[in-house]
Amino acid sequence: MTFSTIDHAMMARALQLAARGLETTTPNPRVGSVVVRDGRIVGEGWHERAGSPHAEAAALAAASEAARGATVYITLEPCAHYGHTPPCAEALVRAGVARVVAAMRDPNPKVSGRGFALLDEHGIGWDCGLLEGEARELNIGYISRMTRGRPWLRLKAASTLDGKTALGNGVSQWITGAAARRDGHRWRARACAVLTGYGTVRADDPQLTVRDVPCSRQPLRVVVDGRLETPLNARILEGGNVLIASAVDDAARHAEYAARGAEIVVLPNDAGKVDLPALLHELAARGINEVHAEAGFKLNGSLLREGCVDELLLYMAPMLVGDAAQGIFNLAAMTGLDQALRPTLHDVRRIGDDIRIIGRLSPLP
Amino acid sequence: MTFSTIDHAMMARALQLAARGLETTTPNPRVGSVVVRDGRIVGEGWHERAGSPHAEAAALAAASEAARGATVYITLEPCAHYGHTPPCAEALVRAGVARVVAAMRDPNPKVSGRGFALLDEHGIGWDCGLLEGEARELNIGYISRMTRGRPWLRLKAASTLDGKTALGNGVSQWITGAAARRDGHRWRARACAVLTGYGTVRADDPQLTVRDVPCSRQPLRVVVDGRLETPLNARILEGGNVLIASAVDDAARHAEYAARGAEIVVLPNDAGKVDLPALLHELAARGINEVHAEAGFKLNGSLLREGCVDELLLYMAPMLVGDAAQGIFNLAAMTGLDQALRPTLHDVRRIGDDIRIIGRLSPLP
Repeated sequence: MTFSTIDHAMMARALQLAARGLETTTPNPRVGSVVVRDGRIVGEGWHERAGSPHAEAAALAAASEAARGATVYITLEPCAHYGHTPPCAEALVRAGVARVVAAMRDPNPKVSGRGFALLDEHGIGWDCGLLEGEARELNIGYISRMTRGRPWLRLKAASTLDGKTALGNGVSQWITGAAARRDGHRWRARACAVLTGYGTVRADDPQLTVRDVPCSRQPLRVVVDGRLETPLNARILEGGNVLIASAVDDAARHAEYAARGAEIVVLPNDAGKVDLPALLHELAARGINEVHAEAGFKLNGSLLREGCVDELLLYMAPMLVGDAAQGIFNLAAMTGLDQALRPTLHDVRRIGDDIRIIGRLSPLP
Repeated sequence: MTFSTIDHAMMARALQLAARGLETTTPNPRVGSVVVRDGRIVGEGWHERAGSPHAEAAALAAASEAARGATVYITLEPCAHYGHTPPCAEALVRAGVARVVAAMRDPNPKVSGRGFALLDEHGIGWDCGLLEGEARELNIGYISRMTRGRPWLRLKAASTLDGKTALGNGVSQWITGAAARRDGHRWRARACAVLTGYGTVRADDPQLTVRDVPCSRQPLRVVVDGRLETPLNARILEGGNVLIASAVDDAARHAEYAARGAEIVVLPNDAGKVDLPALLHELAARGINEVHAEAGFKLNGSLLREGCVDELLLYMAPMLVGDAAQGIFNLAAMTGLDQALRPTLHDVRRIGDDIRIIGRLSPLP
């Protein structure tokens, strides 16, 4: 299949619309749609949040009668099942559209292809795969959850040029500048959950909320706290919407946290610590697509060693602080460079006075 | 003074010509010149190496009679003194040029302005300051030596994303890829001297020659070796053109090195180590404009602590090796971020699969 210039432009527009839902569609994917007749856009729509209309339903509603005989561009295969809303593939049939162009198939292996099958049944032509890479990037977490049963985990860290995340005495505020910190909040805002460890709670007492950028909802906050040591007056417990992953089952302690609005999930591994892969599985089961981890030296190292990190989001400040300062990742000593973890550079750019490096340890799902 | 579009284009061409001498003019500056009459280039020239004609002399020779009434663009104020070659300001007068445009004044405080004064005496109009920033960048080392009495020292290091330059067992080949290593040789090639320490000689036994890129001459190799421990069969001594900076005066040992073609300079400081600022002064006295340092953890740290580093040339490989590995810079422990060294980011780009970061600790001289 070759797509026309118009096809490309319309799908690019649909992707733009989809991105409007970046921070709100959780646990659903971000989807956009454009209805085009005689080379003119007659309807646009996007999915805003769970329970609200799907993108193509919104676009068809906007187009109304003009949808008849139109081409509908959608960033994801239309659904064929009844959920919160009726199946979109049926809505397309009912609207009498002439052609459907999708960026990618539904990544959910249980329903993938069914939307197209329904279009086939009604003789509506469809094509799939236009700007598919861009569509996959936009829903990297949703696709990861559907195809791998775990969220896409993005580990954010800030360091100096010489690889230090804090001075030896713990001082780390601020290594990176305001622009980099604001950018970091933008990444928090799109995540379904922000994850940290008890070490960071003890050292910095962070809120881990989205503050530096506008955001209409707050991600779930997840604390890896094997021995349930998070103080009941920790700032992270303020406002609720917190999940504590522990390795110990302590009913009395659980009740204390519950009274503060935090839920406990007990997931011990054989070493008596929190089973991090099991935690990711648990988060996926709860509909978490993207996890944004902001932790310290130890938990960063554990996440890396246990293969839980898909992407590194590294802010690097033009600063040298020497070797007595605190490193970023607690990894076991290596004897050969073949043992090194090797992220693929996905994006390198300057943010304010700092450098932002995005490296991927997992391929795009 | 406002310069015309033609002026800008012609000076840009002169800078291009000047850059042809990047690796050969030492200890002289890199200079280019263009002779323009009636909007047409009638002669071009550049300085190739000490003893060969200056840029404007070469350009005037190329222009021959067409230089009469022409405008001459030069990336540096024409000289007014007799050296290897007669004064260029006089040559411009003799050629009967109408106007001279220079990018910058001669940075040598002893002669700065004399070339322009000689033009004034003969009623030849001149302007100065066109593309001056670019001209200063091109001769950053020469200007440093003239104005600060020391070379511009560029410290090259290769590290992982987590700030490690070698594994704990010393393995460091290769952290960066072939493209980054070749780029590193390009920077070596333009330097007048490559500097390392005995620690690196012992650990890696490097040659520190320019090999990965074509180069018509080899930079002086300088080894900081306080106790004269460099083995006589070290590869760095092969081919001569080596200066060893030591803190001990040992005539017998000196004779052994001399027999291998290496010169010794004894520069002890109060701590019984090599006095690094004094070494830079010594190198400047020998006509060294740019020093390219490739050393290890300790000497890197000493150079930084003693304020000898003007520029960092850092190649960063997308690799994580953990905190047990070797850091880049041996700096004293800090108690506040106000004590951090803060280079200004000058250039950040990807080279092959790696990232190259150029940071400046000194302003452009």
